[in-house]
Amino acid sequence: MRVVVTPGMGIGPEVTARALVELQGTAQFTVMGSTAAIGPWLSDVGLNWSSGQVGEDSTDLVLVETGAGRRPAVVEAIAQAAQAVALGQADAMVTGPIHKARLRQEGFEFMGHTDMLGAHFNVDPVMAFTGGRMRVALVTTHIPLHEVQAAITMERVLHTVRTAHAALVRDLGLSAPRLVMCGLNPHAGESGELGRTERDTLLPAADRLRQEGIPILGPLCAEAAFMAAARGENDMVVAMYHDQGLVPLKVVDFGRSVNWTLGLPIIRTSVDHGTADALVGTGRADASSMVAALKLAIQVSERRASI
Amino acid sequence: MRVVVTPGMGIGPEVTARALVELQGTAQFTVMGSTAAIGPWLSDVGLNWSSGQVGEDSTDLVLVETGAGRRPAVVEAIAQAAQAVALGQADAMVTGPIHKARLRQEGFEFMGHTDMLGAHFNVDPVMAFTGGRMRVALVTTHIPLHEVQAAITMERVLHTVRTAHAALVRDLGLSAPRLVMCGLNPHAGESGELGRTERDTLLPAADRLRQEGIPILGPLCAEAAFMAAARGENDMVVAMYHDQGLVPLKVVDFGRSVNWTLGLPIIRTSVDHGTADALVGTGRADASSMVAALKLAIQVSERRASI
Repeated sequence: MRVVVTPGMGIGPEVTARALVELQGTAQFTVMGSTAAIGPWLSDVGLNWSSGQVGEDSTDLVLVETGAGRRPAVVEAIAQAAQAVALGQADAMVTGPIHKARLRQEGFEFMGHTDMLGAHFNVDPVMAFTGGRMRVALVTTHIPLHEVQAAITMERVLHTVRTAHAALVRDLGLSAPRLVMCGLNPHAGESGELGRTERDTLLPAADRLRQEGIPILGPLCAEAAFMAAARGENDMVVAMYHDQGLVPLKVVDFGRSVNWTLGLPIIRTSVDHGTADALVGTGRADASSMVAALKLAIQVSERRASI
Repeated sequence: MRVVVTPGMGIGPEVTARALVELQGTAQFTVMGSTAAIGPWLSDVGLNWSSGQVGEDSTDLVLVETGAGRRPAVVEAIAQAAQAVALGQADAMVTGPIHKARLRQEGFEFMGHTDMLGAHFNVDPVMAFTGGRMRVALVTTHIPLHEVQAAITMERVLHTVRTAHAALVRDLGLSAPRLVMCGLNPHAGESGELGRTERDTLLPAADRLRQEGIPILGPLCAEAAFMAAARGENDMVVAMYHDQGLVPLKVVDFGRSVNWTLGLPIIRTSVDHGTADALVGTGRADASSMVAALKLAIQVSERRASI
C-alpha cells in the first residue's frame, strides 16, 4: 500500500521519523511538507530519503516539498496529500499534529484537519477514534459545551451512526458491529427528568436506525456505555460531545489511540495528540500514536483493496 | 468506630450483608431500615443480629427498625441515621442505593441522598468520588447538560474546591493535596475560541484559590487532568459536570469507587452504583463498592477521632 504522511508541527516530524523506521518495509511511504523542517529528523533516525514526487518509484523514502504559498507549508501539505489520495496516487493519508491556534493567526480558517478535509471534499465528516480497547465516534466535536444540545439534531445523529456503521463494516470487516449510543444528559436524562434530548431526538433516532438494520443500543448513560466498551462488549461508542467521548478513551487508551476521519472519499488517520512543543528535541515524544495511525491506514487500505 | 448503615433498595440489603460479614470486627456496625426487608439478608449470610436501638451495646449486629411514616422506610432510615450521627450516637453513616424515580412517586422530593442530606443540615454539599486510582469532586451534579454552563459560578467553584481541599487535608491527612480543575469546554476553551467560562470564571477562581493557599492546577483540558489522575499524578480532579467526572472514574475504577459527600457536618459515604434490581437474588451483585464505602467511613472516622 502507498501511504502519504504529513508530519505536521511540534513533535510531529520527530514521531513521524521514528514511526517510519519502525514500520519500514510494511508499506510505501511518502512524506509531504517542508524539506527543511522534516529532512533533518528523517536523517537523524538513519532513514534513506530523497526529494521527489508523490507516486515516484524509489528505493528511498520520498520527501515531497510542498512549499508555502497562500497557506503555511503544513497546511499546503495536508491539501496536497488529500488531493494525491483522491487522484489515486496514494491509498491513504496519515497526519501528524498541527497547532491550530498558531495556524489561525496565519489565516487557517478551520478547527482542525477534519473540518478542513470536510470542506476540501464538500462532505460532512465524522470524527472517530480507535484505541487499544475502545472505539468512539463523536456527534459533535469542537464547539462550546453550551452549544452542544442544539447541535444534537436527528439528522446529525443519523449521519454519525450510519457513517460509523458503514466504516466498521467496510473498513474493519465487522459483519455485525455492536454500536452503542450515549445519552446527552446525566443518566441518559433519567426518564426525562434530567433533559429531553433523549426522548425527543435520541430514542427516535435509535428506533429509526434499528429499522434500517443498524442494531444500535441506547441511548445509555455514558458510564454504562464506556464501562462496557472497556470490557470489550461493544465495537464503538457514539458519544454526543468531545469530553464525553474523549476523556474515557484517553484515560484507557492514551498513546495507542488513533484519530480516524469517517465519511471522507479518502482514507485518513491521524495521531490523537497535539504538537507538545515543550517535548521537541528532548527525545521524550512518544511515537506510538503515529505508529498506530500508520498501521490503521495500511490495514484499511488493504481491506478496501481486497474488496 | 461506630458506623450506621442504611442498606437502601434493590441489591442494597444483599451487598450490605455480604460487606458486613467481610468487615466483621473492624467497627461497631448498626443497620437501619425495615427489619422485614433487611433481616433475611443478614441471616442469609450467617450474621448474628438482633433488633435494637442506635448506640446500644450488643455483641450482635444491631438492626434498628425505622418504620415508614410520612416517608418510605428507606428514606426514614436515611434521616434517622443522619440524625444519629449528628447527635454523636455514631461516628459515620454509609448508604446503599435507592431508586430515586420510584421514591419520587412516593413523594421523595430530592435528586438523591446528597441533596436530601444537604437540605437536612441546611448546607451546600459537594459530591465527590474516590476510587482505586482517582478522586473526583463535581461542581454540578444532576442537571441537564444545557444548564451546566449557567450553574458554573465563581461562588460554586470556590465552594467546591475549598470543600474538597479541606476534606483531603482533614479527612485523608494529605498535607499538600494536589488538586486539578477541568475546563468546562473542549480543550479547556482553547484560549477562548471554544467558550468563555474558563476565562471569565475558572481562571479567576483558580487564581483566587492559589492566593488563599490552595495550589490548584488548571483549568486544564479534561483529558489531561484525568490522564494525570490515572497515573497517580494528582490527588483529586475537580470536574465541572456529571459525565465529565464520572465516566473516566468509572471506566478506571468501577467496583472500587465510593461516593463521598463533602461539606456535611457528618461523615457520609455511599456505594457508587444503583439498585440493579435485575440482579437481586441472583448472587451476582458485587459488594466491593459497599466494602470500600464502609472502609472509607471507618478511615475518616478514625482520622477525625485522632485529631
